[in-house]
Amino acid sequence: METYQAIKLIARPSGGPISDELFEVVNLPKPEINDGEFLIQQTHMSLDPAMFGWMSPATDSYIPPVALGEVMRSSGIGKVVESKHPDFTVGDRVTGLLGWTELLVSTGKGINKVQNDLPDETILSVFALPGLTATQGLFSIGKPVSGETIVVSGAAGSVGSIVGQLAKADGLRVIGIVGSDEKANWITEELGFDGAINYKTDDLASKLADLTPDGIDIYFENTGGDIQQHVFDRMNVHGRIAVCGMIADYAKAVPSPGPNWIPMIKKRLTVQGYAMPDHFGDIPALLTKLTPYVMQGKIKYRSHVLQGLTSAISGLNLFFTGGNNGKLMVKL
Amino acid sequence: METYQAIKLIARPSGGPISDELFEVVNLPKPEINDGEFLIQQTHMSLDPAMFGWMSPATDSYIPPVALGEVMRSSGIGKVVESKHPDFTVGDRVTGLLGWTELLVSTGKGINKVQNDLPDETILSVFALPGLTATQGLFSIGKPVSGETIVVSGAAGSVGSIVGQLAKADGLRVIGIVGSDEKANWITEELGFDGAINYKTDDLASKLADLTPDGIDIYFENTGGDIQQHVFDRMNVHGRIAVCGMIADYAKAVPSPGPNWIPMIKKRLTVQGYAMPDHFGDIPALLTKLTPYVMQGKIKYRSHVLQGLTSAISGLNLFFTGGNNGKLMVKL
Repeated sequence: METYQAIKLIARPSGGPISDELFEVVNLPKPEINDGEFLIQQTHMSLDPAMFGWMSPATDSYIPPVALGEVMRSSGIGKVVESKHPDFTVGDRVTGLLGWTELLVSTGKGINKVQNDLPDETILSVFALPGLTATQGLFSIGKPVSGETIVVSGAAGSVGSIVGQLAKADGLRVIGIVGSDEKANWITEELGFDGAINYKTDDLASKLADLTPDGIDIYFENTGGDIQQHVFDRMNVHGRIAVCGMIADYAKAVPSPGPNWIPMIKKRLTVQGYAMPDHFGDIPALLTKLTPYVMQGKIKYRSHVLQGLTSAISGLNLFFTGGNNGKLMVKL
Repeated sequence: METYQAIKLIARPSGGPISDELFEVVNLPKPEINDGEFLIQQTHMSLDPAMFGWMSPATDSYIPPVALGEVMRSSGIGKVVESKHPDFTVGDRVTGLLGWTELLVSTGKGINKVQNDLPDETILSVFALPGLTATQGLFSIGKPVSGETIVVSGAAGSVGSIVGQLAKADGLRVIGIVGSDEKANWITEELGFDGAINYKTDDLASKLADLTPDGIDIYFENTGGDIQQHVFDRMNVHGRIAVCGMIADYAKAVPSPGPNWIPMIKKRLTVQGYAMPDHFGDIPALLTKLTPYVMQGKIKYRSHVLQGLTSAISGLNLFFTGGNNGKLMVKL
């Protein structure tokens, strides 16, 4: 490999689908490394809804946006192919914010070695951002108690599917909201959810009432949109809502309004947004919490693998259409 | 006093002002007391926004509604005028949910003796529901830190005025939102708030920006309405919002929508509703927290005293118009 491909962000999205015009695909000569550096060849890169925030203009968001002209940010996994760094040797598997590129030079900052033999897909699907995000939000904000009812939107997504399985393993009644019958079947038949609602075809309010006869104690919010108000209306006293994602609103020029706050008082609800960069210091503890569930076979996943770097661009739109079945990633 | 007056709730409000048709004023013979009972003559009764919830149809609210045909619920202070109870003697001052009545028979359940010589007005204004509500919400949900900025809506109200003064005593920048210039002057000149906004005449967004140059860390929500979105837009990362009241929405048939939740994630906000019945067990601790501020002269208050039992009915509408200047109560 004497040249490699990378993709730079050159314009910011203004609502609507993600298009080629936002990006520039470049071919570059293989970089040289200096002492203290090593060269990573990325093997799989993760696509995540958080990317819409990273592409947006600077706001008060939790992480600065990608600057125009910079390689697009993403997390990924790869292998060390050259090294002049004492701690990294050729063949090491590494993860980190590698970006939309086939090759990159690193000093090791923000890079972690993979200490197991699990496949790339398992690592990106469970032990990377999705699993950590699910574990943080469910336990720290949701505070699940056996016998309670949790509703998860985006329930077949990379985070939602793990949230539901963790809650199920802890003895909760788990209802998932998804966007296709295939996903509904997957979460109930394969993942063990107690019920599923296809928001595109089911009568959301009546089916939600049927499936949550004792109301809702925890709402794990991945989507926003119409679903939000219906779930909010059925929250129980002292309910907790973890706000993880609002995918239904990210592409809207004017986001839809939220629920009125009177029920917050009547039912003493807590609604809390979170994002993982606040909790990077907690990752060892989160992995300690998550790993036993995985080792006991309680966490299943599936991956939706796109082929080749440039497939990432149109791949992002799968988040808006719900067209991905499983954790979205790109194989390089 | 051989007869006494009481007021029963006979219909539920359906939005709009509170009218005489919702109530029946009755004259009753003075009740006899049995062994283990005592007779209370109420001297001051408190009017509070929570009453709108108590008058509404049964919901998932924190306390059952007043049944139709029952005496309207309220907290108040009075004196024991007859007693066949071992623990209560004639002349004792007592507080509790005495209701809209001049006389009532009690077994002592839910009744507390007043252990000091403070005037009725001070007790109802500071050491009863308003002060406890302010203390609970500010410290448990707001988690104030010296140097932070707090915005209080309903800032001249019985709860808001105490919240602001507690925060000011703890070194925060305190901005209050009120509905008249007189109230704006009172909270800045008398109570020491750093700034005030008259939402009826000021340009809310621009004045809020002027007065909170470093953004808003804590929002103490007493009103809802248009104010809410403007404050929400200026919340800082890791901001906390205590939802105590939504007076601007209680009388609306269709409550106004709330803010979209995307900023909850971007700024990792926490929004939490609360109501004091959850915290009655914490009252000793809340009084321990509150009392030093009062004893050091850091908590000023004013009362708005109506005369006579039946003045309570139209008096409730002062909450909607903001026509009361200070803690609203009725002298009997």
